[in-house]
Amino acid sequence: MKSEKLILVTNDDSVYAKGIHALVEVAKKYGKVVVVAPDKPQSGMGHAITIHDPLRLKKSALFGDIEAYACSGTPVDCVKLAVYEVLHRRPDLILSGINHGENSSTNVLYSGTMSAAIEGAMEEIPSIGFSLADFHPEADFSASQVYAEKIIASVLNNEMPKGTCLNVNIPKLSLSEIKGLKVCHQAHAYWADRFEKRIDQFGQPYYWLTGEFSDVDHRENTDLHALKNGFVSIVPTHFDLTAFHFMQHYKNLENEN
Amino acid sequence: MKSEKLILVTNDDSVYAKGIHALVEVAKKYGKVVVVAPDKPQSGMGHAITIHDPLRLKKSALFGDIEAYACSGTPVDCVKLAVYEVLHRRPDLILSGINHGENSSTNVLYSGTMSAAIEGAMEEIPSIGFSLADFHPEADFSASQVYAEKIIASVLNNEMPKGTCLNVNIPKLSLSEIKGLKVCHQAHAYWADRFEKRIDQFGQPYYWLTGEFSDVDHRENTDLHALKNGFVSIVPTHFDLTAFHFMQHYKNLENEN
Repeated sequence: MKSEKLILVTNDDSVYAKGIHALVEVAKKYGKVVVVAPDKPQSGMGHAITIHDPLRLKKSALFGDIEAYACSGTPVDCVKLAVYEVLHRRPDLILSGINHGENSSTNVLYSGTMSAAIEGAMEEIPSIGFSLADFHPEADFSASQVYAEKIIASVLNNEMPKGTCLNVNIPKLSLSEIKGLKVCHQAHAYWADRFEKRIDQFGQPYYWLTGEFSDVDHRENTDLHALKNGFVSIVPTHFDLTAFHFMQHYKNLENEN
Repeated sequence: MKSEKLILVTNDDSVYAKGIHALVEVAKKYGKVVVVAPDKPQSGMGHAITIHDPLRLKKSALFGDIEAYACSGTPVDCVKLAVYEVLHRRPDLILSGINHGENSSTNVLYSGTMSAAIEGAMEEIPSIGFSLADFHPEADFSASQVYAEKIIASVLNNEMPKGTCLNVNIPKLSLSEIKGLKVCHQAHAYWADRFEKRIDQFGQPYYWLTGEFSDVDHRENTDLHALKNGFVSIVPTHFDLTAFHFMQHYKNLENEN
């Protein structure tokens, strides 16, 4: 008999978010679940780690009989603390999410949800980040749960290539409206950022980050294209940022020496 | 006559770090320099952005007659604020660093210095991150300045491919000891993280992140290999995390629908 799988669940919306509870419900069908997730919202924290402050880890009763901890750090801190302090071993699977809001395209870089999954990939642990294209705190995760279950089952049955993880985004549609799954590549899109400048009670300016998302990628096989067309997008993701195709471009610099 | 270049300089060690002043000294030979950098150390902040708090931007006199601002946010916030609020246009070049400590290998993901450069790449602005393999606050940046100048001159004379930036790491050696420049790819290495667990005055545990860097990449053309052998490493870097070589691996998931 195969031994029970150990599954770490984390996110960036905190232990209080509806999305992580929806993910734990699915995860517990596949093994022993341990939750280590932020004690407050950590959206937009990217791959940040906490260097200059100590970290706190507190048992949480929010998940009933599931062992759970609220961590004062970032999503990447949660993965590190889970692996090295809570579990003292590499789990068989790391699940991150389900995020309230999509993390397609270049959002993968800003996303705490996906950075937790990428940290898992760096530890050579099969990892999946799930995000629903709905920011609402009471978003309906039922269709996301169906697709999460399908993908988790597949990943547990087929070895995940080492050093990779999956970025899964689910459109804001009912189960019957979703057309299926598409394996995609990351779209090239960016935030045309604007700041809202306000003046405080002392006459000093402050700025709120805002912006509009600008899809500049017209290829058909992107995650954004899949989502717009009613599909769940899956992007196999790794952490090698080398632009291999441009290495030759800089060879003249080498020769200058 | 060509118009003067506009050069944004930022970092993650803050406006007070010796490294950014060393970089400004070089940058000002090539155009009009504007500094927008964190008002406190932001090492390890990765690609984090500030969503839940307002940002502050204060004029700084630390750079003499160079226009400079200290920003309350992350290095990526600095780039966004610089482009959209301070300069109101895309600068011709973004320089980040010179970091106190190397950012080779997978450190590119945790590094605020490199995330600022990657944010520049996302804005399609030629961007370079510089890091010296010396954490000391009084590190000697003189050799780094010579190589920074060489690379900046080359980048301004040869178009940088859109959507890319450079990750430059300089070994802790004197100018005469450095063997030259190598164009490399990112090494696969990771932090074998450990936490130092301590108990506070109330009997509660807290954790400090520590760890040892583990180079598991035995290929010859990595940035770590170059640094170990006395070369300055240059990694052309982009922000597409798609693991293209594994897209086929997941095609069976598509077919299940």
